[in-house]
Amino acid sequence: MNQDRAGRVLEALNEMGLCQMIITDPVAIYYLTGVRIDPFERFYGLYLREDGKHVFFLNRLFAVPEHIGIEKVWYSDTDSVMEMVSQYLDHEKLLGVDRELRADFLLPLMELGAAKGYKVASDAVDQVRGVKDKQEQEKMRRSSRINDLAMAEFKKLVREGVTETEVASQMLDIYQSLGADGFSFEPLVAFGANAADPHHTPDNTAVQPGDAVLFDVGCIKDGYCSDMTRTFYFRQVSDRHRSVYDVVRSANEAAISLIRPGVPLCDLDAAARNLIEAEGYGPYFTHRLGHFIGLSEHEHGDVSSANHEKARPGMIFSIEPGIYLKDDTGVRIEDLVLVTEDGCEVLNHYTKELEVL
Amino acid sequence: MNQDRAGRVLEALNEMGLCQMIITDPVAIYYLTGVRIDPFERFYGLYLREDGKHVFFLNRLFAVPEHIGIEKVWYSDTDSVMEMVSQYLDHEKLLGVDRELRADFLLPLMELGAAKGYKVASDAVDQVRGVKDKQEQEKMRRSSRINDLAMAEFKKLVREGVTETEVASQMLDIYQSLGADGFSFEPLVAFGANAADPHHTPDNTAVQPGDAVLFDVGCIKDGYCSDMTRTFYFRQVSDRHRSVYDVVRSANEAAISLIRPGVPLCDLDAAARNLIEAEGYGPYFTHRLGHFIGLSEHEHGDVSSANHEKARPGMIFSIEPGIYLKDDTGVRIEDLVLVTEDGCEVLNHYTKELEVL
Repeated sequence: MNQDRAGRVLEALNEMGLCQMIITDPVAIYYLTGVRIDPFERFYGLYLREDGKHVFFLNRLFAVPEHIGIEKVWYSDTDSVMEMVSQYLDHEKLLGVDRELRADFLLPLMELGAAKGYKVASDAVDQVRGVKDKQEQEKMRRSSRINDLAMAEFKKLVREGVTETEVASQMLDIYQSLGADGFSFEPLVAFGANAADPHHTPDNTAVQPGDAVLFDVGCIKDGYCSDMTRTFYFRQVSDRHRSVYDVVRSANEAAISLIRPGVPLCDLDAAARNLIEAEGYGPYFTHRLGHFIGLSEHEHGDVSSANHEKARPGMIFSIEPGIYLKDDTGVRIEDLVLVTEDGCEVLNHYTKELEVL
Repeated sequence: MNQDRAGRVLEALNEMGLCQMIITDPVAIYYLTGVRIDPFERFYGLYLREDGKHVFFLNRLFAVPEHIGIEKVWYSDTDSVMEMVSQYLDHEKLLGVDRELRADFLLPLMELGAAKGYKVASDAVDQVRGVKDKQEQEKMRRSSRINDLAMAEFKKLVREGVTETEVASQMLDIYQSLGADGFSFEPLVAFGANAADPHHTPDNTAVQPGDAVLFDVGCIKDGYCSDMTRTFYFRQVSDRHRSVYDVVRSANEAAISLIRPGVPLCDLDAAARNLIEAEGYGPYFTHRLGHFIGLSEHEHGDVSSANHEKARPGMIFSIEPGIYLKDDTGVRIEDLVLVTEDGCEVLNHYTKELEVL
């Protein structure tokens, strides 16, 4: 049990008017306890309460370490587990629950009168997870370091006639040879006009001279995710495509240059977007500037016009402006950044110079 | 929209005292509408109502075909989608919901007074899905036919010194070359004593003469899953291991010989279990006899001592007895079976004779 993290979640709950919460998201439970299992359909819950007497509800089929510094309550498939849970709750108080809590767990709690009321309180956990501690920051650095090294290998796979799937299918081995545990998400490999689709799935398109070669890729190392995009060109690049590239790179750098504690995240989105709009490409930057990342590849919180939250030291998110020109080309340049006490540290070090392969 | 399936779900709801239900499980929605998308965190709901005026709630970002024979209600990320949903519901009646319905959708409905009460009603959908129609039966046959052919290829991969992961890593290509769309689940490959763990994950264990070679494998074809287990021995098999094999095979065949409409599913489990117990291996058959399967690899419904439901024509489930001897060996023999009007059709045709590779 990570008492510091649990304490911070309880503080956030307190600000929401809550003194107890049932957490069922396995990733959030891993974040707080160090225990990671997949409960499938069985109930798996961490009950956090103000007085620190937290309880971990576990099915007897789950394999968890013996000493994790929290009271364990074991149930069997034949037990009425929600009745057991209800007995531990403060029935006179509101109960925070995960946004993902399933109806077949929530409705029985309600029927049992387990709490005074129920409120989705995932934000309390997400706020805490959004600010990485030193140990997490170091793991995020390592994961992105592997991603930098992998990008240098990936570009070597692009040869005359190779297809997107042929390139993508070699990426896992490269990541593993560099020490990664796996993908953080399925790699996006897009050639030419395919790069104009920000969510393209690799297909049998073969690379042609003059094509954009877009890699949006990431790995997992010790549980933490990396995520980086670079756009290359194959054999040659037209002047127009080069100027599109330069706009995207400037947008990426403009946003990064503003990052420091206190800056509203929407201002970062605006900085990149205004620059792209000023160059006439506004309608072709069709998504938010970035997203939070850590134990999950997409964590709650984003860098968008709708998020007025201010940057805080320890936050890690992506900065990924793009310009997508249908039937023509697409360019995206993405880095992960860590907000520091007086600015930011860019976790990716792979060059942003335009490379023609 | 498959009106026949929707009609059967409404009948099942009616028997539960319900006249309306919100379905949010993407696989259940695919089963009923033919539309398959991954909504991630966005609301995606099919509202079924007694009078047949069903409504499909869709985010504008979802790509679905134009003509699907059901009223579509589109919402945007800036809309209060649960308010929109609430306006369509009968507030004076109970509302059936999926067991997986998320708290951040259910709690707002409750706050809006969208229904008189809320009841988990997934069983209504599961009962209908448990009985496959002719079209589904044919797809299940095709998926299992590929699995039969694949098994014949998989056994050829077992050569002196090969490891479990080396074998497992070649299986996807073989499935795809036989026309499958992918795995229905990650293949289980276990050599020797590893076969004594029914949930073993392939590792770097190399095969040794005298080892059991257990393959629990399946593919997806046109959306439908196959699942079969065969246990081979490598180079040689001891008399004791052969007798264990014979017991498991007899248990598999004893259960299958009983299958016909009306037989309680628990009786099938008992037939296999009693036979194994009579041979002295009772404590080593540590799981239920089988599970339902179709669009999902594990569907609701199982063949276990706890399920007194009776077999009905169209049901498809696995029959998979096993004996697991720690630090020694493990044998499991699994087939998928389709209940017919007067007995059953075994969907797998790969031999159950003991093969020494």
